[in-house]
Amino acid sequence: MKPKQISVLGSTGSIGTQALEIVRAYPERYQVNVLTAGSNSSKLISQALEFKPDYVAIADETKYLEITQALSNTPTKVLAGKKAIEELAAYSNSEIVLTAMVGFAGLAPTIKAIRSGKNIALANKETLVVAGEIITAEAAENKVKIYPVDSEHSAIFQCLQGENNDNIEKIILTASGGPFRNKSLEYIANASKKQALKHPNWEMGAKITIDSASMMNKGLEAIEAKWLFNLEADQIEVIIHPQSIIHSMVQFTDGSLKAQMGLPDMKLPIAYALNYPDRLPFKANRFNFADYPQLTFEAPDFEKFKNLKTAFEAMRKGGNMPCIINAANEAAVEAFLKDKIKFLEIAEVIEETANHLTFKALNSLDELINTHEQAYKQALQIILKKA
Amino acid sequence: MKPKQISVLGSTGSIGTQALEIVRAYPERYQVNVLTAGSNSSKLISQALEFKPDYVAIADETKYLEITQALSNTPTKVLAGKKAIEELAAYSNSEIVLTAMVGFAGLAPTIKAIRSGKNIALANKETLVVAGEIITAEAAENKVKIYPVDSEHSAIFQCLQGENNDNIEKIILTASGGPFRNKSLEYIANASKKQALKHPNWEMGAKITIDSASMMNKGLEAIEAKWLFNLEADQIEVIIHPQSIIHSMVQFTDGSLKAQMGLPDMKLPIAYALNYPDRLPFKANRFNFADYPQLTFEAPDFEKFKNLKTAFEAMRKGGNMPCIINAANEAAVEAFLKDKIKFLEIAEVIEETANHLTFKALNSLDELINTHEQAYKQALQIILKKA
Repeated sequence: MKPKQISVLGSTGSIGTQALEIVRAYPERYQVNVLTAGSNSSKLISQALEFKPDYVAIADETKYLEITQALSNTPTKVLAGKKAIEELAAYSNSEIVLTAMVGFAGLAPTIKAIRSGKNIALANKETLVVAGEIITAEAAENKVKIYPVDSEHSAIFQCLQGENNDNIEKIILTASGGPFRNKSLEYIANASKKQALKHPNWEMGAKITIDSASMMNKGLEAIEAKWLFNLEADQIEVIIHPQSIIHSMVQFTDGSLKAQMGLPDMKLPIAYALNYPDRLPFKANRFNFADYPQLTFEAPDFEKFKNLKTAFEAMRKGGNMPCIINAANEAAVEAFLKDKIKFLEIAEVIEETANHLTFKALNSLDELINTHEQAYKQALQIILKKA
Repeated sequence: MKPKQISVLGSTGSIGTQALEIVRAYPERYQVNVLTAGSNSSKLISQALEFKPDYVAIADETKYLEITQALSNTPTKVLAGKKAIEELAAYSNSEIVLTAMVGFAGLAPTIKAIRSGKNIALANKETLVVAGEIITAEAAENKVKIYPVDSEHSAIFQCLQGENNDNIEKIILTASGGPFRNKSLEYIANASKKQALKHPNWEMGAKITIDSASMMNKGLEAIEAKWLFNLEADQIEVIIHPQSIIHSMVQFTDGSLKAQMGLPDMKLPIAYALNYPDRLPFKANRFNFADYPQLTFEAPDFEKFKNLKTAFEAMRKGGNMPCIINAANEAAVEAFLKDKIKFLEIAEVIEETANHLTFKALNSLDELINTHEQAYKQALQIILKKA
């Protein structure tokens, strides 16, 4: 078997690290050509020494010298800056690009990879949230396949294998409900960073963990699902499933549902995306009903978790709205993680930002970048008033 | 769209009746060419008048005159006797044969249908239980597809669409546990026919409902699954799931599980088999988590439900053993339904019959028929001693 040629954008984050664990476990199956990171130079260096990619790049240009020196006796070439990452996204030797950068920063490299005909293992949900229309059109034009890495979308993608997508009646995204599912609004209002970062089931990066606590994550996933599976907002349902065993479901037009299940382990959807259409003989821990005699389900609380409502409204409106709420959310979560605002103010910042900006259709990547920057700045101003 | 040409063997039973409800709801999709029944002449007559098949046949030859007279002004031709049913199973105008007869009687017509190249919608599980090796070989040789109609096997079949069967790690058959799941052995020992016939979730015929109460049904399903999906006994697990919402599951070699779910409604798997590979836009009631906030699971009790153990042992031994336990079960369930033996004696009759007969490989249909008759007679003798 010829090893699959892969690039990992965002290799030092949670998804990137787990992807490299898979590569480490199945070295005959993968060749890593490119690794890129935001600012974690020491981790990028150790990854480069282990996986010997052709190129590494770091967004934070101040780390360039450190990395160059550390890798001076290796064949790996070092680049720095956002433009370098975009260029490496198109690196000719790679067949598949895992896009695991955090936030809006993932968009430009993903588009570059698509335009150069690389299949995408998509872990950066913001790409489809803000630019679903552009991305799906570019992917179709360049005959590029997008394999979802989010556990929910991987579940739906797996359930749709061998099915006709015209037979989808609806999808049901499951949500753990996060650390605040059973908490009062009063408790949530005063919740600490530490409490918000304590996800009951999944170990993930800080941004997505806060998004889970606020349920913005599920809202963004709903928008991502709309584009990945060509659905209307009314075909997307969210249900709270605290055990996170059923990762999501599809209901078909004959009333049959399919669910994909397993222990919460991001390596499973990562491996599925990297191995598609085959499955890796993966030695991960197996799900056992003896450990989960009950799987429970409840309706989400759209009042307590306003972000979910905001995200569905943005999905229905379309245009610049998903981009605006995503940018406002990025600003608000950063502010919360820096102790500038309180937890419930995240949703307020997003709502106020969306109300402050006017609806527009979006036609190009440049318009998208402008919208993001404008919304992000607007959110910062709102945050400043609150802080 | 050209209507699908179908034959329904066992049209007056629970599965046959529900299949014809589907035909009634989608008359443009199906043309019924053949209907056959065991002895229910009045129902067969009314079905013939409604669906205008080319042929009807009834196993009970004493009903021939009654049916002939009732259909004398119609173009439907009437036949009687087991051989006539076998001949009609091969009726040239039909593309697919739904085999919904009860018990061992389904075997010969199913083989006839396979040998004449008809695809099979298999609702008669005994066919694969007793003759799995012969049937799968004949199906392969005649390029015939077997679409399972049992809800569990349909679930697995649906979960396997778009998958590579080599990637199956195991399957998990769900079982409601039947009416005696939570009852003491003492209660079960003295259970009435009425209590045993009261299935918590599914409306089915009497034989299969008793088999559910004794869990022989799940044992037979395990053997059926072995042949349908080419599995080893160790790859087949049974789990009690009292709500009967998850109809069964597949676990793949990467640790991912797929489940097929829905309200307990046999029309769904029947429609899936008749429409494969497309799905019918089916107006059945939809599953709703609000009605099922908890799905629960527990290990089966192999001591309380000895049939389950007996069936797995027979599957492991192979040869004539599955045929023997199936024949003994048919005799024992008939005896129970006629108040000749008590409920727990069903399992005793099967075990004693199996112990009384010696293991043999089976090489032909004739050997199979002999084995069935011998085991049935042996079981009757054991029943006589108990009665």
